[in-house]
Amino acid sequence: MMKATRLEEGNTSKAPVPIRSNKGISVIDLVLRLVGIAGTMGAAIAMGTNQQTLPFFTRFVQFSAEYDDFRSFRLFVIVNAIVCAYFVLTIPLSIVHIMRSVARGTRILLIIIDTVMLALLTAGASAAASIVYLAHNGNSSTNWLPVCQQYGDFCQGASGSLIGSFGAIVVFILLILLGAMALSRQSKSRL
Amino acid sequence: MMKATRLEEGNTSKAPVPIRSNKGISVIDLVLRLVGIAGTMGAAIAMGTNQQTLPFFTRFVQFSAEYDDFRSFRLFVIVNAIVCAYFVLTIPLSIVHIMRSVARGTRILLIIIDTVMLALLTAGASAAASIVYLAHNGNSSTNWLPVCQQYGDFCQGASGSLIGSFGAIVVFILLILLGAMALSRQSKSRL
Repeated sequence: MMKATRLEEGNTSKAPVPIRSNKGISVIDLVLRLVGIAGTMGAAIAMGTNQQTLPFFTRFVQFSAEYDDFRSFRLFVIVNAIVCAYFVLTIPLSIVHIMRSVARGTRILLIIIDTVMLALLTAGASAAASIVYLAHNGNSSTNWLPVCQQYGDFCQGASGSLIGSFGAIVVFILLILLGAMALSRQSKSRL
Repeated sequence: MMKATRLEEGNTSKAPVPIRSNKGISVIDLVLRLVGIAGTMGAAIAMGTNQQTLPFFTRFVQFSAEYDDFRSFRLFVIVNAIVCAYFVLTIPLSIVHIMRSVARGTRILLIIIDTVMLALLTAGASAAASIVYLAHNGNSSTNWLPVCQQYGDFCQGASGSLIGSFGAIVVFILLILLGAMALSRQSKSRL
């Protein structure tokens, strides 16, 4: 069976294989990175400027909530800032890939760092999402009350800023997919 | 400049390039998948059987905590079970890769699904981690009290089960790295 497959492959390589350019993939790659910059920057800014002070206070405390009160939200802002910076830094590399579509080493490098960044961003976004869920619904067995009735604007801001981050996660998955496709096409066109 | 690079590449392809086998990479791939099965299965079982009933009760309630009370923990168990099943399903494919190291399409497929599973597992694990953090430390601005003084065993169980899951995340990153390396080696050895 193995022999048969080898033979088949031999046939394919003798047939005229058109040399396929990765230019289209590289252009989509660049566009996706720009989308990712917008998403993560928006998420970081929206969460970072998110705060609400309630219009009433007791003798002891003024009630206010800001992103810095929650470790998960702070992580969220930091992670989004890191990923946004990473996207900006990879723009030149992406442009190089458009001009020089035979690049191999840099593509593999990008796939690997993209994967690590995907894991980082997913961790930050879902940690924040779980806190947002808790703020909306609370938890009865630990007696954590939902706080979104009081801090309505804060909750809305936090929920909204998740959107940009989850958009960037989808962007990363597409980028890794495109990178793997480009690598596989290269090895075909080189036969 | 482009021309120069092309020329250089032409030279390399004429030099005798040893045909490098991907057998070693495929064996490591198989071992990593087995580690991943152990990690995610352990995490799912540890979290799924995690519950604690406090030895005292009031007139109205018996205090108890189990993983099902927290959406994030339930997500954690489901995600770990899915990823564990995925690892089991890919074992045959991994064995095929050992025997037939020229496989290309299946490698790309594995990289892509691995990436999606990495995102899924990271989301589940970090959502659970943020709840565990909250259970340990509480949050003063929303008046969520730390519950680990009461539910000590429950907290320990939840924290422990995170370990297996984060181990599997590292496994996934290594798997994607190995997959990209194997793909790139193939295209070299085919010149």
